[in-house]
Amino acid sequence: MSTHFMRSEFDFIKSIKSLVDAQGGPESAGSLGIGDDCAVLPKDPETDQLLTVDMLVEDIDFRLRWATPEDIGHKSLAVSLSDIAAMGGTPRYSLLSLGLPSRLWNTDFAERFMASYNSLATATGIQLIGGDISKTPEHVVVDSIVTGEVPRGGSVLRSGARVGDAVFVTGSLGGARAGLELIERQGLGSLSAEASLADLVRRILRPNARFGCGGSLRKTGAVTSMLDISDGLIGDLRHICEASGVGIMLESESIPVDDGVKEALARGLLQAPPIAGADAGQSYALLGGEDFELAFTVPASSADEFPRELDGVRITRIGVVTPERGTISITADGGKTVLDASGFVHF
Amino acid sequence: MSTHFMRSEFDFIKSIKSLVDAQGGPESAGSLGIGDDCAVLPKDPETDQLLTVDMLVEDIDFRLRWATPEDIGHKSLAVSLSDIAAMGGTPRYSLLSLGLPSRLWNTDFAERFMASYNSLATATGIQLIGGDISKTPEHVVVDSIVTGEVPRGGSVLRSGARVGDAVFVTGSLGGARAGLELIERQGLGSLSAEASLADLVRRILRPNARFGCGGSLRKTGAVTSMLDISDGLIGDLRHICEASGVGIMLESESIPVDDGVKEALARGLLQAPPIAGADAGQSYALLGGEDFELAFTVPASSADEFPRELDGVRITRIGVVTPERGTISITADGGKTVLDASGFVHF
Repeated sequence: MSTHFMRSEFDFIKSIKSLVDAQGGPESAGSLGIGDDCAVLPKDPETDQLLTVDMLVEDIDFRLRWATPEDIGHKSLAVSLSDIAAMGGTPRYSLLSLGLPSRLWNTDFAERFMASYNSLATATGIQLIGGDISKTPEHVVVDSIVTGEVPRGGSVLRSGARVGDAVFVTGSLGGARAGLELIERQGLGSLSAEASLADLVRRILRPNARFGCGGSLRKTGAVTSMLDISDGLIGDLRHICEASGVGIMLESESIPVDDGVKEALARGLLQAPPIAGADAGQSYALLGGEDFELAFTVPASSADEFPRELDGVRITRIGVVTPERGTISITADGGKTVLDASGFVHF
Repeated sequence: MSTHFMRSEFDFIKSIKSLVDAQGGPESAGSLGIGDDCAVLPKDPETDQLLTVDMLVEDIDFRLRWATPEDIGHKSLAVSLSDIAAMGGTPRYSLLSLGLPSRLWNTDFAERFMASYNSLATATGIQLIGGDISKTPEHVVVDSIVTGEVPRGGSVLRSGARVGDAVFVTGSLGGARAGLELIERQGLGSLSAEASLADLVRRILRPNARFGCGGSLRKTGAVTSMLDISDGLIGDLRHICEASGVGIMLESESIPVDDGVKEALARGLLQAPPIAGADAGQSYALLGGEDFELAFTVPASSADEFPRELDGVRITRIGVVTPERGTISITADGGKTVLDASGFVHF
């Protein structure tokens, strides 16, 4: 249930979400509403069921010029698996709605899409149990539904962060955004030949979300809040701030910038200007969407001994939860910059 | 999980469904695959969970020229509720993916859509628990997910029909197809003024699927197979024939043709030619899609005393299950016509 939007679309989404929340908000029996990565339903006395849905649309979320049917099949499932991971859950089943324009019917698009989708489903132990197929007038539309399970009451929500908690993030950030920028500017051809640039491209086309890591993080018993990074670190941490009634202060030096981003910057291949309080690489890491890493909070008392690697994934401490409700700030060279809404709109 | 296609698109759907079934077919643990109206998952020792998803696409399933936001909001939920009813289930929760082009963002489309969606949700006792909002390049896309419940092992499938069973249908047929034809030919304005024509228009724009009737039919204990009529009576009964390994013989005289269809025909407002073995009204009833009535089978021993009305909905006996595997035929005036695939493609 992440949203695949540009920043300027935030207001629109928010207005729709408020309409949805009015019907199925957090106060409703058995549900946590649209505010978290998944809806949570009681399944049986030991288990809650997680449900998430993600829509991917051609020319909004991908272009057929540079995304193969295999890329789209993989990514449509990966984004939903990431939502399950963000709640600390184990994915179980999926359903798939696929809308295809008639020009693709007599191609191998659907076969290639499904082969890649099924490959990731098998790799992550889930089973496709149903779906719908539709014709569209012009564009490919994919709606991916995944169910998951978590011990009863054990979902890791966005609302559990407490003042003083340490903020952590898995893996590295900024790569997907940089990959998208390179593809849109140069096309795919020249990129795939170079390993470090090909890695950036892979981050946007074939995200390997932290599928298993979410459950492992929950099992540490120390994680107080968590979500996946689909809109960008700052954009998504804002959700934790809102749900938990807190602020977050990030240390710019500790942000794990993707190595490929650093290299592409050094070679002058990326062009977005840095934001206040951060260098160019950190800016990509702070604002870049679609990284599908997990950001989470851990009480200060557990933060020092919290593992710096889990399931082979690096874990980095990047900041602290503050009492400044709704305020995300970043410290660099002893100075502190508050990142307001307009600050990250003007990337 | 009904498909909203013209007949000529059957081959395409079938090829995709076979791809999906290859992954999650009926033999898979805990699932009944894409072949039924809903997927079935074990929930707890007493209960199975039903899951269905339906995609509606602008200019394929509706046109903004004649469908209001309220119509689309109602129908997107109604088609999924119909799938739950077709399994004999009780609907519980829903999720909603809504894709809107930017030209509609600054209109009241989303508010009106959601008001109507929520109104039907409230009326049928379900709760919207999540979803996704996306931008689209040009067309409105709605993906509706509904969960339901049924006693463990109690789902009414398509595969339970046995030779000799009587075939029944709820309500009346042909109205939605006739309504669509009238709208496309005359536009809405002239239609809404006349009650009988307005009823036809309502059948296509605001289908009142047999939401509660499916559960009541299951509780009779006599229903051996069931589905909802989304593709047309013949097209859908074919699914029962395939799943159950049987044939069906319909009596043309007993088909409950919508009264509005009869009137529109008498006034020369409808133009589709009748198919072999049926008059014009019966042809609309046999081939018209989107009626969202329920068709089901009952053993011969229970058929005579089976109620002819349930929850205020008329129930009509229309035929019998035969051993002619895959063959749907219709009797009229003592003659019998076999309706093959090409027979109903050429409506």
